[in-house]
Amino acid sequence: MPDDKKSQLGRAKLKQMLGAPGEQAIENIARISPDMANYVVEFIFGDIHSRPGLDLKTRELAAVISIATRGGAEPQLRAHLHGALNVGWSEQEIIELMIELAVYAGFPAALNGLYAARDVFAERVPKSAP
Amino acid sequence: MPDDKKSQLGRAKLKQMLGAPGEQAIENIARISPDMANYVVEFIFGDIHSRPGLDLKTRELAAVISIATRGGAEPQLRAHLHGALNVGWSEQEIIELMIELAVYAGFPAALNGLYAARDVFAERVPKSAP
Amino acid sequence: MPDDKKSQLGRAKLKQMLGAPGEQAIENIARISPDMANYVVEFIFGDIHSRPGLDLKTRELAAVISIATRGGAEPQLRAHLHGALNVGWSEQEIIELMIELAVYAGFPAALNGLYAARDVFAERVPKSAP
Amino acid sequence: MPDDKKSQLGRAKLKQMLGAPGEQAIENIARISPDMANYVVEFIFGDIHSRPGLDLKTRELAAVISIATRGGAEPQLRAHLHGALNVGWSEQEIIELMIELAVYAGFPAALNGLYAARDVFAERVPKSAP
Amino acid sequence: MPDDKKSQLGRAKLKQMLGAPGEQAIENIARISPDMANYVVEFIFGDIHSRPGLDLKTRELAAVISIATRGGAEPQLRAHLHGALNVGWSEQEIIELMIELAVYAGFPAALNGLYAARDVFAERVPKSAP
Amino acid sequence: MPDDKKSQLGRAKLKQMLGAPGEQAIENIARISPDMANYVVEFIFGDIHSRPGLDLKTRELAAVISIATRGGAEPQLRAHLHGALNVGWSEQEIIELMIELAVYAGFPAALNGLYAARDVFAERVPKSAP
Repeated sequence: MPDDKKSQLGRAKLKQMLGAPGEQAIENIARISPDMANYVVEFIFGDIHSRPGLDLKTRELAAVISIATRGGAEPQLRAHLHGALNVGWSEQEIIELMIELAVYAGFPAALNGLYAARDVFAERVPKSAP
Repeated sequence: MPDDKKSQLGRAKLKQMLGAPGEQAIENIARISPDMANYVVEFIFGDIHSRPGLDLKTRELAAVISIATRGGAEPQLRAHLHGALNVGWSEQEIIELMIELAVYAGFPAALNGLYAARDVFAERVPKSAP
Repeated sequence: MPDDKKSQLGRAKLKQMLGAPGEQAIENIARISPDMANYVVEFIFGDIHSRPGLDLKTRELAAVISIATRGGAEPQLRAHLHGALNVGWSEQEIIELMIELAVYAGFPAALNGLYAARDVFAERVPKSAP
Repeated sequence: MPDDKKSQLGRAKLKQMLGAPGEQAIENIARISPDMANYVVEFIFGDIHSRPGLDLKTRELAAVISIATRGGAEPQLRAHLHGALNVGWSEQEIIELMIELAVYAGFPAALNGLYAARDVFAERVPKSAP
Repeated sequence: MPDDKKSQLGRAKLKQMLGAPGEQAIENIARISPDMANYVVEFIFGDIHSRPGLDLKTRELAAVISIATRGGAEPQLRAHLHGALNVGWSEQEIIELMIELAVYAGFPAALNGLYAARDVFAERVPKSAP
Repeated sequence: MPDDKKSQLGRAKLKQMLGAPGEQAIENIARISPDMANYVVEFIFGDIHSRPGLDLKTRELAAVISIATRGGAEPQLRAHLHGALNVGWSEQEIIELMIELAVYAGFPAALNGLYAARDVFAERVPKSAP
């Protein structure tokens, strides 16, 4: 049984950071394991991401860099690239970040990060009215 | 033969970010391979870290997260923890960052990051006058 | 020239653990490199997995955790998720294991493990008669 | 402010699994970050390790394999090797597990796991009375 | 503004090593970030791959092994498998290399390397005239 | 019970590649697990390293790159750096290899590889006669 207050806080933070795709991801996880979905909502978003000591922009940056460094976790990388744009990073800053990553994680990790960023940017292009 | 202008820019940036221990590291690398020392100075510091699109605080954050996520690179992690403090992150913010890292890279990586941070903080305690 | 006795032992163990998809994988590998297929059959299944000191359930668990921790090896992860179910782990226990993995390898690795488990479970749903 | 009931549950579970060295580790973490120590106690031990779906032996196995696969986290590997022995795995089974690991994570990871196991076993040898 | 001489050297080396697909990759990267494309051309190919101390065959081998060990970087692995064939490694030697990799990086990494090699070999089969 | 012929072949190959420190490592492993020592001798050296398709120089190169890419396995990295020198790579070529590694695995991995190489080179300096 989830902790209701932390769950509400976590859901609000999740929506703020990752938007509708993040809420969809939680539903997908909950269909496999409701408890895991609760841990993601309550521990990651209700506890950790709601802590006061770092702003959300910095937290999303940490997510993007850590996941891109690890490699092999494209769905999570894309979710957090959306998150990074949602909380205020520009497309150009994210590209810059991936260039920086080449130094520490090597060019293959950096290039895969750039390709993921390109795809995420394309998904967000507003459909212009006719 | 190094590119003198980029080399000078890189050395200034290195000193600004990593301080005297960074300059010592470059000397250590140069004793093994002068060319590698030049790449570190010119490519990492003269090219990448001198780019305008992200501030130094963000670049040092990326360094710390990427190296702590990878694991098994303590000397570089410590050098960049000093760097992060040098360019304006507080000790409390670095601790906060390692807590965030537990989510993405797991608790062992986060705890090793915390222990490295503790040791770096201790090295920087000013020796009080008698 | 393969060691016939170890090869037979390995093939029997492979069939027991990974079933028909495992036998298919060996054929796929043999088409690229018959020697590599022999090493997989003889060293992994004939030698290591046939050792007496740990039961098969524990060995398959080790396979799933190690591959999910590493990341970026989905075909092998799925093969061993089938293997884990074949040797007696329940779907609920495997979900539980992926939740545990979040602690040590981080949530991205754990969530990718859960998604792989969901897909493997779906492949095994018996087609009900009309 | 920690959740008292979960904290008590977590501390009891921590003591059961990792013993006095585990309690010492929590104190070391708390000196750097009391909040991180709370997350370790409450989330890892109070939440995850206290879940009913897998027994403690299996959970400690997952810890050892995941940490040994990752590499570069010796303190955590040693703590959980003690934990594995505390919850009922034998020294011979742990050696067997590291042999199994060679298949999935490669021999360097497996050999480092064996060396860590040897050191942990030596620390636990009862000092015989004169 | 790129360094023209190093850029020309890098482009020639890139074409020699990775062929038309490598040039296509650079165009793809340049559409996301012209600066990153320049770093790849100038730093990787103009600087590092043009150094005299190791021949190109050895450099491409290092690329293939490092990327296959890391995992989760299939596009780069395939590009450098083409590169390895372009600079003189035979298909049989590449298969041999992946078998060797099983020892150090584990069988999942080695098998994924073999599958990538098989796909790359198939792409290069000359279409026979009618 | 080890396969005597393969064991003899493996021991000869081990001695050729890694020298006395390699034989000492096998003794250390055998004290923890005689079976694991046998797998190292028979599978790695008797089977894989004795295959005809790649020369020993190339096999040792693969070992060094894969282990340095992975990180966190210093004892194995040093053993194979000795091995690489034993089978004919020069110190300068090994330094060159670590510079190459910066591209694929990042500078922290490459610098740690350089430091390990420096230490291994120092261990091999002949003690001059008085």
